[in-house]
Amino acid sequence: MTAPDPQPTVHSTQPSLESRFRSGDLRALSRALTLAEAGLPAARPLLRVAREQAARKPGIVLGITGSPGSGKSTLTDALIAHLRGLGQRVAVVAVDPSSPYSGGAILGDRIRMLRHHADAGVFVRSLASRGALGGLSARTMQVLALLEGAGFDWVILETVGVGQSEVDVASACDHTLLVLTPAGGDGVQAFKAGIMEIADVIAVNKADLPGADRTVRELVAAQGLGAHDEHTWFAPVQKTVAGAGQGRLEQGSTGQGLEPTGIAGLVAAVLAHRVHLGAAGLTGRRTRRAEFEVRSLVQERLLRRARDTSADLYARVARGELDADAAADALLGSQL
Amino acid sequence: MTAPDPQPTVHSTQPSLESRFRSGDLRALSRALTLAEAGLPAARPLLRVAREQAARKPGIVLGITGSPGSGKSTLTDALIAHLRGLGQRVAVVAVDPSSPYSGGAILGDRIRMLRHHADAGVFVRSLASRGALGGLSARTMQVLALLEGAGFDWVILETVGVGQSEVDVASACDHTLLVLTPAGGDGVQAFKAGIMEIADVIAVNKADLPGADRTVRELVAAQGLGAHDEHTWFAPVQKTVAGAGQGRLEQGSTGQGLEPTGIAGLVAAVLAHRVHLGAAGLTGRRTRRAEFEVRSLVQERLLRRARDTSADLYARVARGELDADAAADALLGSQL
Repeated sequence: MTAPDPQPTVHSTQPSLESRFRSGDLRALSRALTLAEAGLPAARPLLRVAREQAARKPGIVLGITGSPGSGKSTLTDALIAHLRGLGQRVAVVAVDPSSPYSGGAILGDRIRMLRHHADAGVFVRSLASRGALGGLSARTMQVLALLEGAGFDWVILETVGVGQSEVDVASACDHTLLVLTPAGGDGVQAFKAGIMEIADVIAVNKADLPGADRTVRELVAAQGLGAHDEHTWFAPVQKTVAGAGQGRLEQGSTGQGLEPTGIAGLVAAVLAHRVHLGAAGLTGRRTRRAEFEVRSLVQERLLRRARDTSADLYARVARGELDADAAADALLGSQL
Repeated sequence: MTAPDPQPTVHSTQPSLESRFRSGDLRALSRALTLAEAGLPAARPLLRVAREQAARKPGIVLGITGSPGSGKSTLTDALIAHLRGLGQRVAVVAVDPSSPYSGGAILGDRIRMLRHHADAGVFVRSLASRGALGGLSARTMQVLALLEGAGFDWVILETVGVGQSEVDVASACDHTLLVLTPAGGDGVQAFKAGIMEIADVIAVNKADLPGADRTVRELVAAQGLGAHDEHTWFAPVQKTVAGAGQGRLEQGSTGQGLEPTGIAGLVAAVLAHRVHLGAAGLTGRRTRRAEFEVRSLVQERLLRRARDTSADLYARVARGELDADAAADALLGSQL
């Protein structure tokens, strides 16, 4: 079961994948992403190059989360268009649940991003999540690292916003944008559910719907209730209208043909958060990202080990024949 | 850092905690729960007794999840009342996020359960989750095991229904009840987000609101779209009105004074799922529960190890000085 050593896949008269990746070749990037997604060891030297390059010129790695129906994809689309207008190169990683129910519907949203397809300054990649509610994997982290290393100014991670990926996004990125809507008391619910704690910036999207101003006020007020001092970052709350999506038309609004609004404010809020973090804060975020990646790898290895060696272990615990603690010790080996 | 051995805390002329727990003494149960929540080794012999007793007479361990605002707590309350009417003993474990924002609001819901306070056939315990979006811990699992071992016919785990606890609930219980509402297109959203996959039974709560029948139809139709054969369980979709909660009054309904409806159907649906599982299916669920508990313990130990030995490890990965893979190997030790 040992993986093969990384080997050069081209003849020595051609530039190596590594040097092509280093020079920003998009086809080399695609190849590197494929290797990383497959978990192949050939990705490792490319990841090393990517991390070196990112250390010299870090990208802005922005995670976007929010419940299904909040208009995340449309907002991401508007963000791409805005950032391109500023001359920024943008990569988007969209994590989709690999669900028999939802796969189609969510991938459908992605199709809108195709309008950027001919633009070499935009790179979009869809990744399947581990199961419908699964979290982000170490491979997602490596895809982000490769895109950052390839010199994109912004690397945007868009998650489905339920289950574990909702939690993981804050550990995987420099900044987290939470997308809510006025409808359904989203503000109050985010507040009740504690989800606000991962938000560095909040968008109240579909802000042409009734109740937007009340939602903004609630979100601002809620943050004042938490423990805070003069160093506390209060997530800016920005009203946005990202486009006249299908969801809006269903709800009876006349938003058709609207230009996106509030996007510049959103970009400014993310940049303000980056300034607030400072060098030390950003290093802290990046250490947290590395921790998340390493811990994901550790879990993958342990899972493999559990599968290989302990088919019966869990059943014995279930029958009360073995302590859960003793089983945990057995899995970790004696010297841990 | 070694923990003390479990020691008898009473004189030999008094019955031991273990024997009192075995005989169903509620004060001994409370003490056992406190020991388990604190992660003390003194809980281990009690857990062994609980698992033996549960193996002889298993309880119905039901997880309840659903987004904040779906009325989970009110529904749980109605379930308790109904099950008590059938002479069943019921224990409820409510997992609350330990969030500075949400703590108060959610704990407020719990107060309603106090009306069962004087009833010895009802036992309610609140547990803090690990952070606002944290999942269920091994300790939550041990609390469930102790309650089951103490002879409760139903052990209900109510989660906040966001982030990781939403994912974990299906791994922690025999049956999972997903609570949705007609408002806000919950049906479509659950469908889109893949959350339906963890549901064994679905309640469309607040079914006196407009759109309930459409939501039921969508949820039934969505399940037909997934891959299935003659053994596939389709989650029954039950309309419920659990009570005239505050949320409903805000939405302008005249639900005040309504008796709960649909609760008997909900109980019947859970029992039908238990029959569908059969002995082999239930063993499978219980093995999955044990696996979840053991894996949670493994993660706790690894976290501790990472904290103790590798303060700098993640920072080195972040700086690109060390492979994430090499760091994972270092954490797991060489022989794994």
